[in-house]
Amino acid sequence: MPKNRKLDRPVILGIVGDSAAGKSTLTAGIANVLGADRVATICTDDYHAYDRKERAANGLSALDPRCNHVDILEQHIRLLRDGHPILKPIYNHSTGTLDRPEYVEPKEYIILEGLLGYSTRAMRDCYDVKVYLEPEEDLRVAWKIHRDTTKRGYTEEQVIKQLEHRVHDSEHFIRPQRTFADMVVSFYRPEGQGEETGAKLNVRHTLRPTLPHPDLTPIVEGSKHGIRLELARDTDGKPVDVLDISGEVDDRRAMAMEDLVWNLIPEASHLRDNLGRFTDVNNTQATSHPLALSQLLITYHLVKAALGHYAV
Amino acid sequence: MPKNRKLDRPVILGIVGDSAAGKSTLTAGIANVLGADRVATICTDDYHAYDRKERAANGLSALDPRCNHVDILEQHIRLLRDGHPILKPIYNHSTGTLDRPEYVEPKEYIILEGLLGYSTRAMRDCYDVKVYLEPEEDLRVAWKIHRDTTKRGYTEEQVIKQLEHRVHDSEHFIRPQRTFADMVVSFYRPEGQGEETGAKLNVRHTLRPTLPHPDLTPIVEGSKHGIRLELARDTDGKPVDVLDISGEVDDRRAMAMEDLVWNLIPEASHLRDNLGRFTDVNNTQATSHPLALSQLLITYHLVKAALGHYAV
Repeated sequence: MPKNRKLDRPVILGIVGDSAAGKSTLTAGIANVLGADRVATICTDDYHAYDRKERAANGLSALDPRCNHVDILEQHIRLLRDGHPILKPIYNHSTGTLDRPEYVEPKEYIILEGLLGYSTRAMRDCYDVKVYLEPEEDLRVAWKIHRDTTKRGYTEEQVIKQLEHRVHDSEHFIRPQRTFADMVVSFYRPEGQGEETGAKLNVRHTLRPTLPHPDLTPIVEGSKHGIRLELARDTDGKPVDVLDISGEVDDRRAMAMEDLVWNLIPEASHLRDNLGRFTDVNNTQATSHPLALSQLLITYHLVKAALGHYAV
Repeated sequence: MPKNRKLDRPVILGIVGDSAAGKSTLTAGIANVLGADRVATICTDDYHAYDRKERAANGLSALDPRCNHVDILEQHIRLLRDGHPILKPIYNHSTGTLDRPEYVEPKEYIILEGLLGYSTRAMRDCYDVKVYLEPEEDLRVAWKIHRDTTKRGYTEEQVIKQLEHRVHDSEHFIRPQRTFADMVVSFYRPEGQGEETGAKLNVRHTLRPTLPHPDLTPIVEGSKHGIRLELARDTDGKPVDVLDISGEVDDRRAMAMEDLVWNLIPEASHLRDNLGRFTDVNNTQATSHPLALSQLLITYHLVKAALGHYAV
């Protein structure tokens, strides 16, 4: 077992959200912080029961649990959590086909990202940290059109049509999972700006008391700009902390928050260099304080879980 | 639970043997006796880790455990035994490719047939009945050439070359599994005859005391022809019963043995009509006493296991 690790099984992070909510980007970012060789990534899309043609024929969307081997996904999470390998199915997003499965061994950390990761109780019980991604809807639509037309071989018209067809399934199957997350992470544009991606987006974290979040009061006290923490009621009326980080936050304040959180997990200080990089739409490396601090807060919980602090 | 069934999990039959030993034919026959809707069939070839091209490149034969996801096979048998579904990989024998996996639910009976079914202790512990198929070697070679050239797209030359290449792996990985079987079933030709398939083959059952075999003494006593039972030493020196059934056994004697065994499992008498049919090389339905009686002896144990007689 690596030093500073107490938990004798993989730490499991869930990243759930609607199509093009930014799951893969966040997953890649977190995996990069932890070190790719220590992380196994599972995408729940791989558990589609039907290929693209079959879905077109039977009229089911990929968001519908009936369109997915949810029981097998559940079984595989449990197996990985118990330290066993799995033979993971593969859904090929480029071709829309189901390909030969791949052998996956559990690693120190497992990130499970996808549409339906919190859809059953047995599944939810497996996670150490549950994140739900909920970007501003216009932003998600823009991201989806960009991705599906450039990487998945759809036309813009097809994507827009698909979005319309999926409204029902999205509301019924995806969004209800928000309530099970320890953290809801929402990227959104500064008011009045059309900026779609990149460094200037703000982020809002809705922090539920289901995890012991780090005490950020020292750096947010008395602050009016950049980073704000407020007690609030969530959309369901439940009490939550709401953390707002502006894309315009100055480097000094962002660094102060980074320092504060890293100092709470000195065991993981060597990971600090890997934080906050992402590849923007122009395929250039960029950094963003809201993204870096979001990755950091999630990493904080993963490190704490690995140290056994959240073990029952 | 169906009537007359006591065991609260699937009954698992193993049928192991070298390539073209007749595993699929026996599996299909037994499934036919029990009723196809009550049987799930798993072929261990589906757990190949490499497709045909990759095997040609890496020089491993399909008989080599390193060429197979043995740990996943083990996991899947255990899951099915515990009543859980699996997402089973698929090896396509026609194309030599690994295809999209299929969802398999456990049924009352599970037949696991293939090259490596008894290769680990954890796997062996899952079976209720373990059969090893060991036809006369010349017969197996003839069967293999016939099948691989007609159904798997190989030339006769390729098959012969493959057989030569596989001698080592066959000796090291397949044949050692014989020792774990409750029954070794060997079809062989009548002396001096070239008959390769069909009704006139004899069969020899080597019956190990690891299962309580039915008492056949009433029908074999004093008999010199057709059906013989003898106490013998197995190739490893261990005491066994050897049951020989001639392809030339007359209908009356064969029927007497059928009656005797069916009377020991009255709960399954409705299955009797399904016994002993097979499709011969000319794709015509045929019956053979040695085949029918072999199927019956195996069915006997499966029914007894389902009734809970072999439960610990």
